[in-house]
Amino acid sequence: MSENKLTKSLAERILQSRPESDEKAMFAARMGLIDYLASSFAGRQDTGIAKLLSIIDSEGGHAVVPVVGQDRKAGSRQAALLNGFIGHALDYDDVHSDVRGHPSTVILPALISAAATSVAVGGERLLASYILGVETMARFGKSIGSEHYLKGWHNTYTLGVIAAAVAVAYLKSFTQEQLEKTIGFAATQSSGLRNQFGTEAKPLHAGMAAQAALLAVSLTEVDFGGTRTALDGKNGFFGVYGNLELAEQTLLEDWGQSWKIVEPGLWFKIYPFCSAAHHAADAAVRLAEQHSFDPKDIEQIDIVFPTGGDAALIERNPRTGEQGRFSVEYVTAAAILGLPLSVDSFTNAPIPKRVLELLPRIQRSYDDTIEPAPNAVPKGRFTIVKIAVKNGESYSERVDCPRGAPGNALSLEDLKQKLEASLSYAPGHATTLLKTILNLRSEMDMQTLLHQL
Amino acid sequence: MSENKLTKSLAERILQSRPESDEKAMFAARMGLIDYLASSFAGRQDTGIAKLLSIIDSEGGHAVVPVVGQDRKAGSRQAALLNGFIGHALDYDDVHSDVRGHPSTVILPALISAAATSVAVGGERLLASYILGVETMARFGKSIGSEHYLKGWHNTYTLGVIAAAVAVAYLKSFTQEQLEKTIGFAATQSSGLRNQFGTEAKPLHAGMAAQAALLAVSLTEVDFGGTRTALDGKNGFFGVYGNLELAEQTLLEDWGQSWKIVEPGLWFKIYPFCSAAHHAADAAVRLAEQHSFDPKDIEQIDIVFPTGGDAALIERNPRTGEQGRFSVEYVTAAAILGLPLSVDSFTNAPIPKRVLELLPRIQRSYDDTIEPAPNAVPKGRFTIVKIAVKNGESYSERVDCPRGAPGNALSLEDLKQKLEASLSYAPGHATTLLKTILNLRSEMDMQTLLHQL
Repeated sequence: MSENKLTKSLAERILQSRPESDEKAMFAARMGLIDYLASSFAGRQDTGIAKLLSIIDSEGGHAVVPVVGQDRKAGSRQAALLNGFIGHALDYDDVHSDVRGHPSTVILPALISAAATSVAVGGERLLASYILGVETMARFGKSIGSEHYLKGWHNTYTLGVIAAAVAVAYLKSFTQEQLEKTIGFAATQSSGLRNQFGTEAKPLHAGMAAQAALLAVSLTEVDFGGTRTALDGKNGFFGVYGNLELAEQTLLEDWGQSWKIVEPGLWFKIYPFCSAAHHAADAAVRLAEQHSFDPKDIEQIDIVFPTGGDAALIERNPRTGEQGRFSVEYVTAAAILGLPLSVDSFTNAPIPKRVLELLPRIQRSYDDTIEPAPNAVPKGRFTIVKIAVKNGESYSERVDCPRGAPGNALSLEDLKQKLEASLSYAPGHATTLLKTILNLRSEMDMQTLLHQL
Repeated sequence: MSENKLTKSLAERILQSRPESDEKAMFAARMGLIDYLASSFAGRQDTGIAKLLSIIDSEGGHAVVPVVGQDRKAGSRQAALLNGFIGHALDYDDVHSDVRGHPSTVILPALISAAATSVAVGGERLLASYILGVETMARFGKSIGSEHYLKGWHNTYTLGVIAAAVAVAYLKSFTQEQLEKTIGFAATQSSGLRNQFGTEAKPLHAGMAAQAALLAVSLTEVDFGGTRTALDGKNGFFGVYGNLELAEQTLLEDWGQSWKIVEPGLWFKIYPFCSAAHHAADAAVRLAEQHSFDPKDIEQIDIVFPTGGDAALIERNPRTGEQGRFSVEYVTAAAILGLPLSVDSFTNAPIPKRVLELLPRIQRSYDDTIEPAPNAVPKGRFTIVKIAVKNGESYSERVDCPRGAPGNALSLEDLKQKLEASLSYAPGHATTLLKTILNLRSEMDMQTLLHQL
């Protein structure tokens, strides 16, 4: 394989693509946009937003891009930083199992900023750009190898910056050379550490990635000099951050046969916390529905994963609901005790005493002899929740494909309900917004959408 | 070693340090500031600057920080992006052998933005913060391990963002907790690939790092949530980007015994290109002074390094002077042919034909049996230039410690000349500026300096 093949070939595939003509993909993009906005409106009062707004207000600048749910505007890069954070603040936004991270909350904020600051962007073009952003991020997620995430990188940021830059480059009809350079300007800003999980910096990674993607695009637009072969060779992006051989084999495999936004598709969340805990949450909810546990009677709760299946769940001893977004112990305890697994249980308020008291009796274990189900999401994943009570009885539930995941997907009606719940403070707006998104086609539709954020 | 020791201990050491009281270090900092400004004024007409200004003008914002040599101001993060680029545009700015990169062009732009947007910053405090930034970057450079750079990362960016954030945090008298968080916000933005060498993106890395450092500081100031242990553990910064064990052994070793800005000290450049080619340049200049070569008579030029000594010199076949900043072939050919190794020979203009014609006769080789000199800079480095001419004779020069490097350092008088040459368009300004820097102490001095940029 020649030295500069990956960057060049990726750019060629992107520019030859016309996802506009794939109805399924376009519908999936509309669903993704609804879910991103539902997650953003749900997070609109997150305390991190005011902090970021105070930084942005001190900077000033031409405020031309809407900040979702805030009834105000900011500059292009500033709004991307905010909209990325807002979409991901509650960890309620979509994930994609190939990405091992969150595509929409990086790609859509970058596209919204680009659409609001460009002339004549059509709604269909925006959706097509989003499809190609997800495509890029999912393919990078597979091609970078699982070591990338396990080592400590946060794929949402490391891969999101490149995917969002590619999406905006497509939106702006960049040439081959421009797209290759944009990929390079994005790749050289690829960062993000998982040790920020459980803090406000984790959702901010989405905003940082979106902001960096826009800088990459701007640099290309002013004809700044940069490499056209950033992904290639042993000192290139894949060589440094992942596995170059794997990338050369898989990055562009079967391009265009189906779009990753459709197959396997985005995973829309019914709970506002890390998707790695959704299996346990479904299992615990089911156990709580079938039995009524007195916390005093619970001897022990075992949560069984395949090895590494809980890597994202870094909080074993959370003190706040926010930390609890990355704690399978908190999620399981809350569900067993009948707390609603809704936004209100995952704020930065302290965890209630009765939940805290149950945490020490919950433990994780790993069993690689258990066969995952063929429909497991992500592939190879399962979680078993086993409750042992004092009379010697025990109860167990196993989940391989949680609700919301591909294969157990939410319907448009489900997403409509999520959007309505998020917009309950603004009667009628969910219906208006839904209509705009489902009919998003022209440049005028795009302007309408921007006004409704 | 406890899980969170590195971040906590580094922050403790920084906050306990009072480099203001070390006269040698303070003088070295004044020298560094002179050299950074001389390099920036020399690069003030680089074509990349107008491109970046057009991005910044489209953003708008409160323009409160001077952009060096441009007679205008920009916002805090914007100015840091620009000033980092301007200082490094010609690759004429200092390097530090422990860093394997460029400390001042990241740290000083961040400090300038912070000083211009804060109340009551004293000149001595600025210099002390700069000393601690260099200290942090040099220690990170050693502790990250040589694999980091060799793999493909650009230390100026990856390590600069953390060093600049630490420097600004010290300037602002952050608390222990604030400093720990700032390190985390910076570490999670650590990126930069060496495959951008030879393009405008390479010097921009310095600006990107400075800009990211300021965001890290702002996040701390608004009390944004982030990890306090970013450097620690196998998924922390050193575990992901380098060698955690090495860092645990060396990062804080003998802290405060001497400052890295003094020992080994900054390397100020007499040539505007990559320091890895300075040994060859000195050798070639000496050969050209001693002999007068007719290009037609030159059979072959051999340039001998220790293995890996030419890693930064990625251009073997440059077409422009700008690419030639990373080409030992271009530098050597130009010197042998009597071209001045000054700013004018390293623009984006095409390389003259007579230099191009010599390039194919120049080759690199590696000899690890040669003993480096004890005073070699960087440690273990040497370069030998051997010229074979048609009559069968051959000439050779070897350099272990090039002019400007620690052990062969430039004097204040040398730096004064560099500053004067850079400011030749503004008669008298070099003298004024030099006086300000050599007397920089109070808050008022600091304001005076900002007005003279």
